[in-house]
Amino acid sequence: MSGALKRFLPLFDRVLVQRATPITKTKAGILIPEASQKKELTATVVAVGPGARTETGGTVAPAVQVGDEVFLPEFGGTKIMLEDKEYFLYRDSDFLAKFKPE
Amino acid sequence: MSGALKRFLPLFDRVLVQRATPITKTKAGILIPEASQKKELTATVVAVGPGARTETGGTVAPAVQVGDEVFLPEFGGTKIMLEDKEYFLYRDSDFLAKFKPE
Amino acid sequence: MSGALKRFLPLFDRVLVQRATPITKTKAGILIPEASQKKELTATVVAVGPGARTETGGTVAPAVQVGDEVFLPEFGGTKIMLEDKEYFLYRDSDFLAKFKPE
Amino acid sequence: MSGALKRFLPLFDRVLVQRATPITKTKAGILIPEASQKKELTATVVAVGPGARTETGGTVAPAVQVGDEVFLPEFGGTKIMLEDKEYFLYRDSDFLAKFKPE
Amino acid sequence: MSGALKRFLPLFDRVLVQRATPITKTKAGILIPEASQKKELTATVVAVGPGARTETGGTVAPAVQVGDEVFLPEFGGTKIMLEDKEYFLYRDSDFLAKFKPE
Amino acid sequence: MSGALKRFLPLFDRVLVQRATPITKTKAGILIPEASQKKELTATVVAVGPGARTETGGTVAPAVQVGDEVFLPEFGGTKIMLEDKEYFLYRDSDFLAKFKPE
Amino acid sequence: MSGALKRFLPLFDRVLVQRATPITKTKAGILIPEASQKKELTATVVAVGPGARTETGGTVAPAVQVGDEVFLPEFGGTKIMLEDKEYFLYRDSDFLAKFKPE
Repeated sequence: MSGALKRFLPLFDRVLVQRATPITKTKAGILIPEASQKKELTATVVAVGPGARTETGGTVAPAVQVGDEVFLPEFGGTKIMLEDKEYFLYRDSDFLAKFKPE
Repeated sequence: MSGALKRFLPLFDRVLVQRATPITKTKAGILIPEASQKKELTATVVAVGPGARTETGGTVAPAVQVGDEVFLPEFGGTKIMLEDKEYFLYRDSDFLAKFKPE
Repeated sequence: MSGALKRFLPLFDRVLVQRATPITKTKAGILIPEASQKKELTATVVAVGPGARTETGGTVAPAVQVGDEVFLPEFGGTKIMLEDKEYFLYRDSDFLAKFKPE
Repeated sequence: MSGALKRFLPLFDRVLVQRATPITKTKAGILIPEASQKKELTATVVAVGPGARTETGGTVAPAVQVGDEVFLPEFGGTKIMLEDKEYFLYRDSDFLAKFKPE
Repeated sequence: MSGALKRFLPLFDRVLVQRATPITKTKAGILIPEASQKKELTATVVAVGPGARTETGGTVAPAVQVGDEVFLPEFGGTKIMLEDKEYFLYRDSDFLAKFKPE
Repeated sequence: MSGALKRFLPLFDRVLVQRATPITKTKAGILIPEASQKKELTATVVAVGPGARTETGGTVAPAVQVGDEVFLPEFGGTKIMLEDKEYFLYRDSDFLAKFKPE
Repeated sequence: MSGALKRFLPLFDRVLVQRATPITKTKAGILIPEASQKKELTATVVAVGPGARTETGGTVAPAVQVGDEVFLPEFGGTKIMLEDKEYFLYRDSDFLAKFKPE
């Protein structure tokens, strides 16, 4: 894990994810032009904030943890560049689902 | 149940459903053109999240469970493709009704 | 009561009603053209959900029950077709009033 | 009180009122054309609902009761025809004031 | 106090005020044309409701009482004519300030 | 302090301030034309209301007191003329900061 | 720390930060024209308010403290000039993340 990523502590209910690399070839090895590559909606959680803050200052534990594979909404997420690598920052309530580990 | 579906855990009050197959023939066996096929508004629940999160972090049990037959609203729902099969993700409070098992 | 209707369980604070048949003739028996027929705003409750869900997951008992005659708002309601019969789904807080049984 | 009115039970914090008849003549007996008749903003309460429902299902007692003379807001209110008589339905929090009985 | 005003009971957090008469002459006695008369923003409280209603039906005591001199916001207020006299109805939270009695 | 100011009691969380006089000359004594004078964003608190009212009628103590020097937001504030002197009325939560006394 | 900055006490959940100086040269020493300089999104916290006020007047401790390095959102923040130095005022919930000290 890069230095900047290790030091990156999302705040509140924010969660940093790294998107799965999109499929660029068909099973038969044919290159898929970028325009028709499906937008990759699964990602891995790489950093998690402490959780949302309640009105009275309490904290609500996040629903995901580092290493979880999550299903992203089609829109939303803030692009974050850390040492030239691309990550995305979501709120934990944005995620549609997570996948049980294989 | 497919691998991806088995691993798919909706988050919070989200519920994954599979729509009933629309009626494509009249009782007399005449094919109904797609444009005039009625939009299928019933579906079966195939995966259920833990439930909505309250402001203080509690969880509100969902109103439906896997196997329930539900009545969908005309609009809404997020299409989810899992292993090339089409599912839809709703919030549990979106469902208008459920059907008592026959 | 038809099979589908018997199995139809509205969720939360939703209530299914059947509208009273609109008056199509004057007392003197003259047919009233559809355009000038007054929109029928009374209906009978045929199925009631468990009630609205509170923020912490409790349930608020509905204000009407099956068999009640209710006064509908001019707008709103979702048309539901069950076995080719027309019903309407409202939220229990939509109803303006109910009528004491005669 | 007419049959329909007697049976009419407003729901929640709704209140049914009958507007005072507008003044159509000056003190000197001259007829006031409808266009310049002042909109009658006082009315008598003829039916009262149980009261607003709180988030947890409690009831908040209404601020007016049958027989009270109330001061209406300039706008709002739903016209209700019962046995060809004109009434108006308001929320109890819509009323600006009430009058102490003379 | 006129009959109608004595009987006028504002509801909830509503407060009836009578505006101070605008200054129509300069100290030197010169008449100020209406257009350039400053809008009178001070008024006297003539009737006070019981106070705002809380979500659970409690009452929040109003911040002003009859006889208080208050500083009005530039906009808002509902004109109320009682026996041909002009009053204005505000919510108690609309007032910007009140003046200590001289 | 003028009579009117002494009698002026802001209500709820409102706070009356007097803006610092804008700098009209450069350090070298050159007059700065009004258009390019920076808008003065610091002010002194001259009167403070009891504090914001909570939903159940409690009071939240204000964050500033008479004599405090505060940093104003660029926009907002209601101009109040008292005995021909210009003051501004804010909500205590509008202030961006206050200055520790020198 | 300058006099004005030392005296500057943000109110409620406001936090004053000083932006990191943007990179104006490539590693090879070539000057980057201002238009293509990346907007600097990291900053150092230089003053912190007491924390957000709850509806009942309590205070929610801020999530950052003086000296923390924070990751700013792309938009938002109020420019504050103190003794000709440029600072920015945010709400503590605006910050996306903070960095563990190196």
